[in-house]
Amino acid sequence: MNSPDPFIVRVRALLGEGGCLESAETMARYLRDWRGLFEGKARLVARPRSTAEIAALVRLCAEERVGIVPQGGNTGLVGGATPSETGTDIVLSLERMNRIRSVDPDDFSITVEAGCILADVQNAAAKVDRLFPLSLGAEGTCQIGGNLSTNAGGINVVRYGNARDLVLGLEIVLPDGSMWDDLRRVRKDNTGYPLRQLFIGAEGTLGIITAAALKLFPVSRQRATALVTVGNAQAACDLFSHFETRLGDCIVSFEYMSKPSVQLAYDLVPGTIWPFGDITADSVLVELGWTLEQPSLKDLLEATLADSMEKGFILDAVIADNEAKRLALWRIREAVVEAQRIGGASIKHDISVPIASIASFMTIADAAVRQILPETRILPFGHLGDGNLHYNLMRPPGIDDRAFLQNAEALTRAVHDIVREFGGSFSAEHGLGQLRRDEANLYKSPIERELMERIKSSFDPHRLMNPGKML
Amino acid sequence: MNSPDPFIVRVRALLGEGGCLESAETMARYLRDWRGLFEGKARLVARPRSTAEIAALVRLCAEERVGIVPQGGNTGLVGGATPSETGTDIVLSLERMNRIRSVDPDDFSITVEAGCILADVQNAAAKVDRLFPLSLGAEGTCQIGGNLSTNAGGINVVRYGNARDLVLGLEIVLPDGSMWDDLRRVRKDNTGYPLRQLFIGAEGTLGIITAAALKLFPVSRQRATALVTVGNAQAACDLFSHFETRLGDCIVSFEYMSKPSVQLAYDLVPGTIWPFGDITADSVLVELGWTLEQPSLKDLLEATLADSMEKGFILDAVIADNEAKRLALWRIREAVVEAQRIGGASIKHDISVPIASIASFMTIADAAVRQILPETRILPFGHLGDGNLHYNLMRPPGIDDRAFLQNAEALTRAVHDIVREFGGSFSAEHGLGQLRRDEANLYKSPIERELMERIKSSFDPHRLMNPGKML
Repeated sequence: MNSPDPFIVRVRALLGEGGCLESAETMARYLRDWRGLFEGKARLVARPRSTAEIAALVRLCAEERVGIVPQGGNTGLVGGATPSETGTDIVLSLERMNRIRSVDPDDFSITVEAGCILADVQNAAAKVDRLFPLSLGAEGTCQIGGNLSTNAGGINVVRYGNARDLVLGLEIVLPDGSMWDDLRRVRKDNTGYPLRQLFIGAEGTLGIITAAALKLFPVSRQRATALVTVGNAQAACDLFSHFETRLGDCIVSFEYMSKPSVQLAYDLVPGTIWPFGDITADSVLVELGWTLEQPSLKDLLEATLADSMEKGFILDAVIADNEAKRLALWRIREAVVEAQRIGGASIKHDISVPIASIASFMTIADAAVRQILPETRILPFGHLGDGNLHYNLMRPPGIDDRAFLQNAEALTRAVHDIVREFGGSFSAEHGLGQLRRDEANLYKSPIERELMERIKSSFDPHRLMNPGKML
Repeated sequence: MNSPDPFIVRVRALLGEGGCLESAETMARYLRDWRGLFEGKARLVARPRSTAEIAALVRLCAEERVGIVPQGGNTGLVGGATPSETGTDIVLSLERMNRIRSVDPDDFSITVEAGCILADVQNAAAKVDRLFPLSLGAEGTCQIGGNLSTNAGGINVVRYGNARDLVLGLEIVLPDGSMWDDLRRVRKDNTGYPLRQLFIGAEGTLGIITAAALKLFPVSRQRATALVTVGNAQAACDLFSHFETRLGDCIVSFEYMSKPSVQLAYDLVPGTIWPFGDITADSVLVELGWTLEQPSLKDLLEATLADSMEKGFILDAVIADNEAKRLALWRIREAVVEAQRIGGASIKHDISVPIASIASFMTIADAAVRQILPETRILPFGHLGDGNLHYNLMRPPGIDDRAFLQNAEALTRAVHDIVREFGGSFSAEHGLGQLRRDEANLYKSPIERELMERIKSSFDPHRLMNPGKML
């Protein structure tokens, strides 16, 4: 019989029953990402229930120089929450830190623990007639701490901003185990460096977000949703400028879907209903929302679409008459994602460029991709109103997954080189994690890398926070 | 005759004619703040015309270990742009770095140099039918670089956010004279620590912002403005919650003015017209704006005010019928500021608390002030929609300025202690500079101060950037 690992004994004593998982079976789901692209090992999985427990655990790890991989809902796309192969680090799951600490409708704020499921935060706000606007595919599983640590985006950014923009205050356990109580609810504060900002999007490499005070918004009393077809991506960009100029205050989502991305969804995902007959054009899903009960937002959308058609920005349009039809339109957008998951090997690029350059970017990127592998299925879609495109490439018929993926490095390099020429970002909302970490050396300036290193070194000198991620 | 200072000779050679001011006369206006509260000395005033000149100058200063005080429009309120008494530092005026580099209406962005006057940025946007929403009293004089370095607020924050929220990218000269080109125009980027954020609001203590890419917005085709009277500050808070819930998407300004602050404006500033007869109540100036030409925003405001009156949130209201009447209402708000400048010694507190706590804060703060000096004129006003109050105190009749100001430390301490109890900020939009620097030791947690020091040390090890400010 092995003598017990004294570190594990101390963690067990600290976290009690259910707080420390050690068997291969119980740890398995924490050691790989949901897509199955990353798998690692860990000494144990810790599941603390309070900030005090986290602080004590981090102090213990600092003493023993044990690395910590914080993990939320484990829905990330870049392996940021998966431990390395070494097995020397621990996974710190925030899942039992899931209390809504307070909701204040008159203050338009909510204070939640890091392990709250995003949908639960949305629901807690809705209960007091308020909106927490962060919304993304994984919202039923992902946790707010992970959303903040990755500065999540999603489908409402054009109106409400990224996760960063929704934060009023944070509670953070620093790499030495001290707790920084920055859980404030003020909207203006100019009394020093905005340290809080550093932790948002840091992927847990500077400390662990244990709770957050977040902004709430008034609920939209009306929504109006339309699917429109456009001549090409440039027309979609022009339409955005036209819509923003006329309706800027009430555009909540402005999503672009290329023709082939919709075609694939239609082919592969049952229940995808395309309301225009044949799929012959790119499309935009636009949703408006506002707090007013009157006048009718649908009438307004209708008038703007009529005008857009007259001006030649759009080919055709349908407006959702009721909630069922609205959901059917959104199901197309969701099916586009789903189809790319089930349709075969794909290479995802989560890029952003200046909004007005999206169409030019695609033209140049398409040509570069075709030069490497002419048959590649190019299936872009994304948040056009944020300049954020999921420029995804898929295995063409007649090539197997492995043969296709042999081109991955060349294709990604070509796409990201073009992104750089446009002054864009090679990871707009998914982060670096393990998948994109080394690309930062290619695409970030040496000055920026150096400043990042200085911050990392001064905050986490022993490099114990999420080792091997981001830096 | 003195032999020439070799450092000055080098600066002269670098910056050419008009680039280096050395006489007491030409330097005078750069060496004191506009309120006359701070005055310092400088070795010279440098006026570079390009980023390359700034980089060369900073390199030279780094070599010679000369401190640099960056200065924009010199409109700050905390002495952040005034050099110290030592005379060993230089002032670096950005005033000749004033080109609009590009405007892109379809991309909703503008790229400007740091020395651009804020009003010029607003006008450049307006010329292409776009809005740059940052707006504050000093907009005809202040420079965008200063606005960003102090994370300026102003009257439109409730709708468009603080200066921080308007930034897409920055160009920065670092303390060693290297230039970091972060002048990007993407709205989403998760490829590392948000370093840009550190420089916004850093008061030039980490580097010099030389240019910025900024967000533009669609122009409001309609505005509707009302002045309403309310029973007390709590009613003003309740009204905000009511308005935000009903009209959240189109509230551009929500400004509170206490009864005594308006009374003083009426007494001291000619042309202040109060539209309700006697001044018997606190008031709120609310402005709505949206991009739509139809329906009428004024009708909407009228309906919401009628409903607010029915619900007991307001006592009385006037809506501006035309632009002249609108400006007359805003003149009251401006007169409130002006009256406090000319009415005698005053002690300014630029505080923020959670929005819903503003009235409770005032009740407790008023009592504390009265305990120290019962006759003090308490004249609060401010950006209620941001939880930001200018809680200003003025010399009462019968006491001279000096006698009143002897209470300044005790009064400020009492007010800021209460701010802390509310989890608020003791400098919401004015910054620390010289005036509030030492208070940070009282009100910021030791952990936060320590993290700030680490960043300062790792970015500016010789502490040459705006010495003695903020830290």
